[in-house]
Amino acid sequence: MDSADTDKTTHDRRSAGFKGRTRIDDARARLLDAVTPHDRTERLALIPADGRALAETIESPRAVPDYDRAAMDGWAVRASDTFGSSSRSPGVLRVADDTAHSSPETDVVDGAAVRVHTGSELPEGADAVVMIEHAERVGDDLEVFDALTEGENVAPVGEDVAEDQALFEAGHQLRPSDLGLLKSVGVDRVTAYERPTVGVIPTGEELVQSDPAPGEVVETNGLTVSQLVDRWGGVPTYRNVVTDDAAALRAAVQRDLTKDIVVTTGGSSVGARDLIPEVVDDLGEVLVHGVALKPGHPVALGVVDETPVVMLPGYPVAAIVNAVQFLRPLVKYLGHLPDDPPPTRRARLARKIPSEPGVRTFARVELDDSATDDAGAAGGATDADASLPTATPTRASGSGVLSSVALADGLVAVPEGREGYDAGETVAVERWEWSA
Amino acid sequence: MDSADTDKTTHDRRSAGFKGRTRIDDARARLLDAVTPHDRTERLALIPADGRALAETIESPRAVPDYDRAAMDGWAVRASDTFGSSSRSPGVLRVADDTAHSSPETDVVDGAAVRVHTGSELPEGADAVVMIEHAERVGDDLEVFDALTEGENVAPVGEDVAEDQALFEAGHQLRPSDLGLLKSVGVDRVTAYERPTVGVIPTGEELVQSDPAPGEVVETNGLTVSQLVDRWGGVPTYRNVVTDDAAALRAAVQRDLTKDIVVTTGGSSVGARDLIPEVVDDLGEVLVHGVALKPGHPVALGVVDETPVVMLPGYPVAAIVNAVQFLRPLVKYLGHLPDDPPPTRRARLARKIPSEPGVRTFARVELDDSATDDAGAAGGATDADASLPTATPTRASGSGVLSSVALADGLVAVPEGREGYDAGETVAVERWEWSA
Repeated sequence: MDSADTDKTTHDRRSAGFKGRTRIDDARARLLDAVTPHDRTERLALIPADGRALAETIESPRAVPDYDRAAMDGWAVRASDTFGSSSRSPGVLRVADDTAHSSPETDVVDGAAVRVHTGSELPEGADAVVMIEHAERVGDDLEVFDALTEGENVAPVGEDVAEDQALFEAGHQLRPSDLGLLKSVGVDRVTAYERPTVGVIPTGEELVQSDPAPGEVVETNGLTVSQLVDRWGGVPTYRNVVTDDAAALRAAVQRDLTKDIVVTTGGSSVGARDLIPEVVDDLGEVLVHGVALKPGHPVALGVVDETPVVMLPGYPVAAIVNAVQFLRPLVKYLGHLPDDPPPTRRARLARKIPSEPGVRTFARVELDDSATDDAGAAGGATDADASLPTATPTRASGSGVLSSVALADGLVAVPEGREGYDAGETVAVERWEWSA
Repeated sequence: MDSADTDKTTHDRRSAGFKGRTRIDDARARLLDAVTPHDRTERLALIPADGRALAETIESPRAVPDYDRAAMDGWAVRASDTFGSSSRSPGVLRVADDTAHSSPETDVVDGAAVRVHTGSELPEGADAVVMIEHAERVGDDLEVFDALTEGENVAPVGEDVAEDQALFEAGHQLRPSDLGLLKSVGVDRVTAYERPTVGVIPTGEELVQSDPAPGEVVETNGLTVSQLVDRWGGVPTYRNVVTDDAAALRAAVQRDLTKDIVVTTGGSSVGARDLIPEVVDDLGEVLVHGVALKPGHPVALGVVDETPVVMLPGYPVAAIVNAVQFLRPLVKYLGHLPDDPPPTRRARLARKIPSEPGVRTFARVELDDSATDDAGAAGGATDADASLPTATPTRASGSGVLSSVALADGLVAVPEGREGYDAGETVAVERWEWSA
């Protein structure tokens, strides 16, 4: 476990032992600049490919539709045969077939009308469709109340997708609707990037998996981080606890250099038992040690043999905050997944959040929706501040208090340039578990 | 496939055949009021329980920590022995043990100091911890520069979690950090609600699974809706296509009455081939037919033998919009999952979105982040509109054009009370695939 970084920390204490603190954005950039996305791909059927990053550009092998089709229920006609028709002076056509078929066999010639439904292939000779409610059957005749233009109510070949049309770039993360589009153009397998692999190594001689004796602590960070990795699109391997011993830590890091990412939890500060940054510096390079964020400044970021090593602090809240800041973008980047900012909910702050300028501060908040109206909650689009939920900062007593996370619905980040947020301000609440 | 509801639809056409259009919120309330969440539960280990809804209230079976522990690296002492100490006039204690142990065996008596690290059990007799940097070893003595109060730098029994403390209510959806908390209190299995089951039935005589001939269309809605159900927390069963035949549709609905939800796609309007609402009305009750939303008003909602039936329109965009509005809340409600509004991203609108008052209108938009600054994208907290991405409405030619979905990053909903959004307005963009 790390020394330092409780919420009541004083300035001198937080700085102790760190040569300086890197700003979050600089630290993240240094980490990402030092690594390269992997290039392992696999062929997948559509359903297993949901959520995966494409490793190929996909062009449509065929047009959709690949035939002219009726866009309405009605009658297929030649537009020129309806010239001058109106409700006062209906045109009169001949009903050549009054049963709608998907692929009508009756041609449209010499003032004929053929019944079609939405999606029917347009019969030979037809170039427009009279809507069913704009015509009336009278014996073998059809009275038409509309003058049509060529192509009216017709979905032409390629209306949805043209042959060879570019559909997706490599790196696009497939969504359920994309699977539908791929299926519609006849693509039933895709080449996707493999999910990035992550070795998760909890460290600390005090850690046990269950039934802690005095002086022992149950391992939780490795479990939490592993599940976050899974949600973010990576494949975690949750390792056994490694004790605070340089040789053991070294062996554990080396074993996982076959992974795309190594993550350790605990021992990342500058105390006597904080060995992991030294071990990584010995095996490779520590790029960043100490970041200007709170809670959780004693994070370290390094690279060994081109494999990034994210050394998370041992305090649970600090571990989660840093995982969101550094591990999430790393998983996305190495896995070719789009690194959109995590989704947020806007909320109105119930109490002030204090912060120190220059340090990005993350406050745990509880959300209360009871003040919002239904339309706002359901539609998600009304932008009036009146309908925003309330965000109340939790009275967290320290970054070591895991139960404070259970009470919280999300995090509010106070940027480095601000000195806190005031009560009543509108803020963006980020939920650390959101997988998007 | 349905008649009607392209984007170029005129008013008379859209109203044709519907007795009236229900507002989205009323339609959703009518549906949810008519059904009851299931009560099937299962025992799960922690990792498989990630994302699941608890079916029990959980109280902590033990305190965490269940011993007083050092909150800092330093020296365990009796606070009273440091009375009057300061950096100018250090107190002098006796070093009784200078090796930090997780569970020290040396008691603190008579002005003794025992080395501890963060997390060490507090030795017998000690009631405070001098931080390592606030003391200096001088031979067998320890000079102390601080006067401590009782309990200072000590995490007492139950600081994180008290014994019997309520941790989670039934219905709480478990997150990675919650799994850590449960593990820390010794709970390694939980009772969770089963994921709700959903039968997904694509309908339409024109539908084929591959290689469409003229007049045929590849089935895509069932695939897309099934994967959305999976993301929202349900278990989909993606059925074979059912043709437009009342008896066949009836049998298909009846077969899936063992599921928690039945969803059909296609045939939900009022045309000659739109048979499913009649079939459902015959088997049970249609609660709503026709909703004041666009694109996709020809949706129908019903109940058969207490099983809800969501009848989605056949046009792909209409099917997705309606699935988000009606199927998502149904999956959440029947599965005891919190029905938070989907997460959104705020964006600045590049072009006007027109809409008709009284009709909630969903526009597909493309997001462009290139204008946002790094800090805004990374922190998610800066609220300045200058850093917002741009949302450009796609030039979608119809609700039947599936490829328009591939171009879009999300949906912007114009509420019923508005007549469109203007260019430059700040809007909330909802991504239909977000699983949260």
